[in-house]
Amino acid sequence: MLPDLRPPAPRPGDDPRGVAVLGSTGSIGVQTLDVATRFPQHVRIESLAAGTRWEELAEQARRVRPRRVVIADEGAYGDLRTALGGTDIEVAAGAEAVRALAQAPDVDVVVAAIVGVAGLVPTLAAVEAGKTVALANKESLVVAGALVEAAAARSGAVVVPVDSEHSALFQCLVGEPAGSVARLILTASGGPFRERPAETFDAITPDEAVAHPNWSMGAKVSVDSATLMNKGLEVIEARWLFGVPADRIDVVVHPQSVVHSVVEFVDGSSKAQVGPPDMRVPIQVALSYPERWPADHPRLDWTRTGPLTFEAADRSRFPCLGLAFDALRAGGSAPAALNAANEVAVARFLDGSIRFTDVPRLVEAGLAAARPAGTLDGLLAVDRDARRAADAVRTPTPA
Amino acid sequence: MLPDLRPPAPRPGDDPRGVAVLGSTGSIGVQTLDVATRFPQHVRIESLAAGTRWEELAEQARRVRPRRVVIADEGAYGDLRTALGGTDIEVAAGAEAVRALAQAPDVDVVVAAIVGVAGLVPTLAAVEAGKTVALANKESLVVAGALVEAAAARSGAVVVPVDSEHSALFQCLVGEPAGSVARLILTASGGPFRERPAETFDAITPDEAVAHPNWSMGAKVSVDSATLMNKGLEVIEARWLFGVPADRIDVVVHPQSVVHSVVEFVDGSSKAQVGPPDMRVPIQVALSYPERWPADHPRLDWTRTGPLTFEAADRSRFPCLGLAFDALRAGGSAPAALNAANEVAVARFLDGSIRFTDVPRLVEAGLAAARPAGTLDGLLAVDRDARRAADAVRTPTPA
Repeated sequence: MLPDLRPPAPRPGDDPRGVAVLGSTGSIGVQTLDVATRFPQHVRIESLAAGTRWEELAEQARRVRPRRVVIADEGAYGDLRTALGGTDIEVAAGAEAVRALAQAPDVDVVVAAIVGVAGLVPTLAAVEAGKTVALANKESLVVAGALVEAAAARSGAVVVPVDSEHSALFQCLVGEPAGSVARLILTASGGPFRERPAETFDAITPDEAVAHPNWSMGAKVSVDSATLMNKGLEVIEARWLFGVPADRIDVVVHPQSVVHSVVEFVDGSSKAQVGPPDMRVPIQVALSYPERWPADHPRLDWTRTGPLTFEAADRSRFPCLGLAFDALRAGGSAPAALNAANEVAVARFLDGSIRFTDVPRLVEAGLAAARPAGTLDGLLAVDRDARRAADAVRTPTPA
Repeated sequence: MLPDLRPPAPRPGDDPRGVAVLGSTGSIGVQTLDVATRFPQHVRIESLAAGTRWEELAEQARRVRPRRVVIADEGAYGDLRTALGGTDIEVAAGAEAVRALAQAPDVDVVVAAIVGVAGLVPTLAAVEAGKTVALANKESLVVAGALVEAAAARSGAVVVPVDSEHSALFQCLVGEPAGSVARLILTASGGPFRERPAETFDAITPDEAVAHPNWSMGAKVSVDSATLMNKGLEVIEARWLFGVPADRIDVVVHPQSVVHSVVEFVDGSSKAQVGPPDMRVPIQVALSYPERWPADHPRLDWTRTGPLTFEAADRSRFPCLGLAFDALRAGGSAPAALNAANEVAVARFLDGSIRFTDVPRLVEAGLAAARPAGTLDGLLAVDRDARRAADAVRTPTPA
């Protein structure tokens, strides 16, 4: 007797949907294959692409049996081809082949999981081709959000987020009317230094910054989590994914990482997506939308869930968060500059050449490289200049 | 670039939608008028119906200017007519007039807010007429869930819940595919005796039971909240509203009453609807669905929200909850018998003739009156017999 709550299925084609996994040997790529191979009735892995790790790519291909594989590193082409000898899997190499794969006619869904700026071109290609894009590459929206938005408007491409916070917002928005969002509230774990006194931040070591309280991940992302820059980048992504301006996006620290994010609606009601932290759930949501497929991912046991707490994100102790909001408000190429300078700053912090508290200084220096840039080439030029500016900042050697 | 997340609008007619408020002088009715009169562009109050309080009904009618009003108490017809003299508001009286009002052609949405079994006939009439029913009357589904479900299937009526827990589940289900629910989790405040030692339950006084920790409400509902029978009745309603069997409905105690309920999906993801307790929000959601209308109802301030805690509902200390699950599993007229016997038990507890711990004993006695009953008359006969059975239980006078 309920109304029909189900939206019309927006996907092209019938199941099984043809899926291309770009970045298949990375963490998201590996978990995507884990999820996808559970559902052969729904997902047909058409193609895999990786950067340099041809041995892992070959192993995946022998297991998953895609129609074709691409290795971005052209020097690895021969090895990959040999490793897949005796199979009928097509092998190609080079950036242009990755790009072509994102637009192949037999692909319905592109999982964009290439890390870094390298993921930008193939993601944009998939959007231009009108694919459903399961988006895990942060840079596509941080660097080129306006370009991706315009391309999606032209092609009708659908972008479904894979990141857990954005997946939470996406799931809360399913079925809700346009214009009903009052506020997006991204939750943040707060990172390892949530309770550490600010006056000791100068002494933070790379080892301390990489030790995340709730999960293990790469060093770069861990440091971003410690500075709250990761949350700032997510705010920028949310602006493009959901069309909500910066002044209606908030960040709330929630150390237990059970509430993955919250949408507040114009009528005062809010919805939250919740669950144990497990990336396979948002990956599966992105693959299955608008369906949900049964899976035995861990459930939240509410009777064993400890107290859930929430607190304001402290922008004075974590200035990177405020810088990200500033860049989003400034618009244009400022988020591209922010992202590029932050990559340099994190690398310099990890190699010991700057202090933790220098990271926002380098980001600010990089932000000065922002200038009007309406094309991908223009944005990538800002990216390069911001890296140079951040690299040029001289700081005292850490104690 | 998001997919079109919005479901097709299932409402008949265009805005403003014609609304009938049955039970307009009760708590839900008064708050419905508060909400509805904020949105004259969306809501046209066509008619109001009340039980006996003709003076309040006349005051409401002079303020809201409906096309017609009905007073169920035929003896109050003259007073109401006189009070509305000089207006062009039609006046009628009697149960049949209330029923007719629920089926009037100019009414799109019926707010079913008559308390008790008296609300059953007009609610069923609205469902039979294919109206959108904003359902606040618990008895319609507890006593006659199968009849309401069958009538809605025949007429195409849409039932949108008003109760905060069911509204939470409804909001979490919007846009979600059929068959995707793994579990419905109703939250319960736990009532005033959540931490009270079970061995002192015999000494609980009516005054203690009526003092609810989180909000004030009528004595009957307060006692139901103290025994957890209110949650048991909500479990039965949820079964009919959402078509989910008893073994996939859980109750979790959440003393802060911020998380209004949770849907766990088959892929392991869960969604919760959250907010400060304020009945105007679910009332507005029921009126506005599938839209959301901007309103200044209080927002949750996450940075000032204290820890949110969850614990198992203790069925050994609160046996009424288990009895409700038993009645739902038994099916047929057992929930009708449970509800009727509980009404008698609560009345007897409030008048001092039984102890708090006798309430489940009387309910069990009433449950014995359940027997096959496929019609409304048959269910109402079970209701009467269960009341008699609960009334006949002799207990020691409370200390």
